[in-house]
Amino acid sequence: MTKERLYIYDTTLRDGQQTQGVQFSTPEKIQIAEMLDTLGVDYIEGGWPGANPTDSGFFDAAPQTRSTMAAFGMTKRSGRSAENDDVLAAVMNAGTPAVCLVGKSHPFHVETALGITLAENLENLTASFKHITANKREALFDAEHFFDGYKANPDYALQCVLAAYKSGCRWVVLCDTNGGTLPDEIAAITKAVIAAGVPGTHLGIHTHNDTENAVAGSLAAINAGARQVQGTLNGLGERCGNANLTTLIPTLLLKPQLAERYETGITKGALHGLVKISRQLDDILNRVPKNQAAYVGASAFAHKAGLHASAILKDPTTYEHIDPETVGNARIIPMSNQAGQSNLRKRLADAGLGVQKGDPALNRILQAIKQREEEGYSYDTAQASFELLARRELGLLPDFFEVKRYKVTVERRKNKYNEMVSLSEAVVVVKIGDDKKLSVSESMDSEGHDRGPVNALAKALAKDMGPYQACIDDMRLVDFKVRITDGGTEAKTRVIIDSEDGAGHRWSTVGVSPNIVDASFEALLDAINWKLIRDGAGV
Amino acid sequence: MTKERLYIYDTTLRDGQQTQGVQFSTPEKIQIAEMLDTLGVDYIEGGWPGANPTDSGFFDAAPQTRSTMAAFGMTKRSGRSAENDDVLAAVMNAGTPAVCLVGKSHPFHVETALGITLAENLENLTASFKHITANKREALFDAEHFFDGYKANPDYALQCVLAAYKSGCRWVVLCDTNGGTLPDEIAAITKAVIAAGVPGTHLGIHTHNDTENAVAGSLAAINAGARQVQGTLNGLGERCGNANLTTLIPTLLLKPQLAERYETGITKGALHGLVKISRQLDDILNRVPKNQAAYVGASAFAHKAGLHASAILKDPTTYEHIDPETVGNARIIPMSNQAGQSNLRKRLADAGLGVQKGDPALNRILQAIKQREEEGYSYDTAQASFELLARRELGLLPDFFEVKRYKVTVERRKNKYNEMVSLSEAVVVVKIGDDKKLSVSESMDSEGHDRGPVNALAKALAKDMGPYQACIDDMRLVDFKVRITDGGTEAKTRVIIDSEDGAGHRWSTVGVSPNIVDASFEALLDAINWKLIRDGAGV
Repeated sequence: MTKERLYIYDTTLRDGQQTQGVQFSTPEKIQIAEMLDTLGVDYIEGGWPGANPTDSGFFDAAPQTRSTMAAFGMTKRSGRSAENDDVLAAVMNAGTPAVCLVGKSHPFHVETALGITLAENLENLTASFKHITANKREALFDAEHFFDGYKANPDYALQCVLAAYKSGCRWVVLCDTNGGTLPDEIAAITKAVIAAGVPGTHLGIHTHNDTENAVAGSLAAINAGARQVQGTLNGLGERCGNANLTTLIPTLLLKPQLAERYETGITKGALHGLVKISRQLDDILNRVPKNQAAYVGASAFAHKAGLHASAILKDPTTYEHIDPETVGNARIIPMSNQAGQSNLRKRLADAGLGVQKGDPALNRILQAIKQREEEGYSYDTAQASFELLARRELGLLPDFFEVKRYKVTVERRKNKYNEMVSLSEAVVVVKIGDDKKLSVSESMDSEGHDRGPVNALAKALAKDMGPYQACIDDMRLVDFKVRITDGGTEAKTRVIIDSEDGAGHRWSTVGVSPNIVDASFEALLDAINWKLIRDGAGV
Repeated sequence: MTKERLYIYDTTLRDGQQTQGVQFSTPEKIQIAEMLDTLGVDYIEGGWPGANPTDSGFFDAAPQTRSTMAAFGMTKRSGRSAENDDVLAAVMNAGTPAVCLVGKSHPFHVETALGITLAENLENLTASFKHITANKREALFDAEHFFDGYKANPDYALQCVLAAYKSGCRWVVLCDTNGGTLPDEIAAITKAVIAAGVPGTHLGIHTHNDTENAVAGSLAAINAGARQVQGTLNGLGERCGNANLTTLIPTLLLKPQLAERYETGITKGALHGLVKISRQLDDILNRVPKNQAAYVGASAFAHKAGLHASAILKDPTTYEHIDPETVGNARIIPMSNQAGQSNLRKRLADAGLGVQKGDPALNRILQAIKQREEEGYSYDTAQASFELLARRELGLLPDFFEVKRYKVTVERRKNKYNEMVSLSEAVVVVKIGDDKKLSVSESMDSEGHDRGPVNALAKALAKDMGPYQACIDDMRLVDFKVRITDGGTEAKTRVIIDSEDGAGHRWSTVGVSPNIVDASFEALLDAINWKLIRDGAGV
């Protein structure tokens, strides 16, 4: 059977940006676009050019992707031509190959929200999409509130999507904007649209998760004939979020009844990176990854029930709907030390530490990780700190140096110009062999800006490491993430530091303490120790 | 039209307990049973008597509920009679009116996991359910792996459920144990079971969320004729969780096409308490509530997009699928650089600040927000800092006090027992009117634990505020979130602080600086200023 092509349209950078608490910077948007391109989605909706500085900055930077870049905007307003609508002009000026415009298809919204006549709205749709295609761009129509509109006035809703389709739209996207439409309604209405004359190969589906049915509604539309599906990574989006592509993509690729029928632009190899991409996005947004997320959650293949765990050891298919490896995830059997050990050996091998099966150090390492995770540490991303912990238990961690003490001062006061300014100063005392080194640094950078106490501490620590100085000279702190664990009066701070060297290698370390400076210091020490080991210093 | 009765079966206390990281105590289980009873579910599955001390303790306590209490167990083992199976006896001895036994219906599991013949399994099912009904209990059969079993061998799967039904089961529950079955398959197979002779009024559905379709799969089974639905509060459960009753219940009660057809034991009044129950459960488990949860999440009715926010002000149904009040939730219009003036006026009004349409201050406030958001501030959650910013532009912010300077010292060194210990000390100089106050505090708490520099700073700041002291004495820092914005060498720290007073009011403030101590200090200052305004200090 010839497979039908399904197109994946990602709107993480536009609708995902509507998530409460999410605020992308332009560099973050560029980074996410690169992740989406690696994954292999067909379209990346980058934002709304002209709507805010971040989105404009993104399109100015014009990241090059194999995925088709789409700019989002709205259909032209009444009382002016498409050519003379400045909002639409800003969208066109972004110069993207695809342009997606949201417009009305629900009479109530045309009359109440826009305050124009139903005929005017149809004219605006036609003029807008003719303008886009005349400018040789691929046109998409996000038919806002389409399902609610169809239920209120099927004739008018169909007129709107037909007008857009006949004006040259490559895709008419049926949007369940309020997220309240159930999957069986989505299926029936999608079929009605196809019957009315918009072919399924030109129909897209855009759902929201307000009844937890965004994924199911998308699948219902695909089963009814739609061939484009819109969604976001990790289900980000306005209110309860959009259809979760991190769930839809593996479902489309791994469920036999779908995989036999449809093909996407996403390879099995790219699918293997799904967990990594999901976590990267959480890292960028400093969001706690959702343990129970379908396919990619840390608990998605955790078998806690005793009956399940024992059957899993006989045959994993007894309690797993897919092989976790296919999406880059891993099985967890909390109660089974045996499974824990094989997982651990795999991770140690990844770090170049070959350990024999049955080595008693494996159990010691597992116990140490368990205890530290109870204290708030997390080794999911801090691979360098994990390696140091394992080396300690394996007797493979040299004592490069010892920190005797440190002191950091943060001061805020008026300067001679009567402005409030801050300055931090750090003193670190390190013993290397018999040699005691006292170093002091301040938090001012070369441009006279205060960079804070952790910066001062990092500089003091790296100032004079005697025989190791050459090895650490090219190290640089590139990212710094802080999370509060536990909460309340027992709150502890977890700091994850990403370091980079001159060759572009990057590594992550973790520190935990109720004192944020201490937690940072611990992560900094791990970062230096790991670099010294990797470069073979004094070993 | 006469409505058909749908039965809600809650398994939070059994399958919900299989969530990784969830561990109920007996008193917690009793508390949750009371919450479920208040909500009005038909059945509460309390656990597995005899399987662990917590579950046994729960049934020993025998909480009295209007909901039917069910004990969970497994069908009798081969080679002994139902009367002589000690595992089954422990379940029966709990004395609950209903007994639910899990059993096999998939040939692979019968032969691989149990290692018995297909005929033996049928005998075990029959004997077990005859035993339960002979003892005048309501019997339920959780048909494990039913959908996978049906796909592998429809005849045998149907023989199993028919055997249970004919042995007196009130309910045959079709379980998608591995969570991999899609809603359309669930619909088709449920119809096949009804056609084979188990009436829909005796059929239940039990789904898992491994493809994010647990709610949709449950609705598909109901549409196909099943009349009992199993699930958990907040979607707790093994791996990715069970069908989320916190979502299914409002969907069943509020979506017209379902509400017109079915009735449940849950009243509109009880539905109004849904958000509260969801949060109570998170509190008991010390889990962070999921902001984007359908219906009950704090962001479920948050309208961030500017176009949405302005339409919501005209008519909330423009972007809401239900009235948030019906589930005890509330609308939020967060501030962000995408929001417009109407959105702003609404949010000011919520803060008790009435501003006329067209007031030039509105634009000044929007510009100030925009600029600050570019600097890394975020006012989505920090409502108190938003109010202070708006008051500043409106000339409504009193100068309660001025901070002249502060100094924080963080020191780590060996104590007299040769252990490395940390201690922070903060000095703050504040001017109130003509009065200059110098305060010093250290980071040690009453139990001798170091709580870090921000804690020392907060204590010093709140130590002597002269005339305002009484007003701030009951303030307490309850949460502290940190994230790095921008990244790289221009990295800035954004700190969000949640404060609480003695009356249980809670408010959030934000501070931004490359220096984490400075950012925290700014958020602390906002927290105090907001409290002084709210309590009308000196105004």
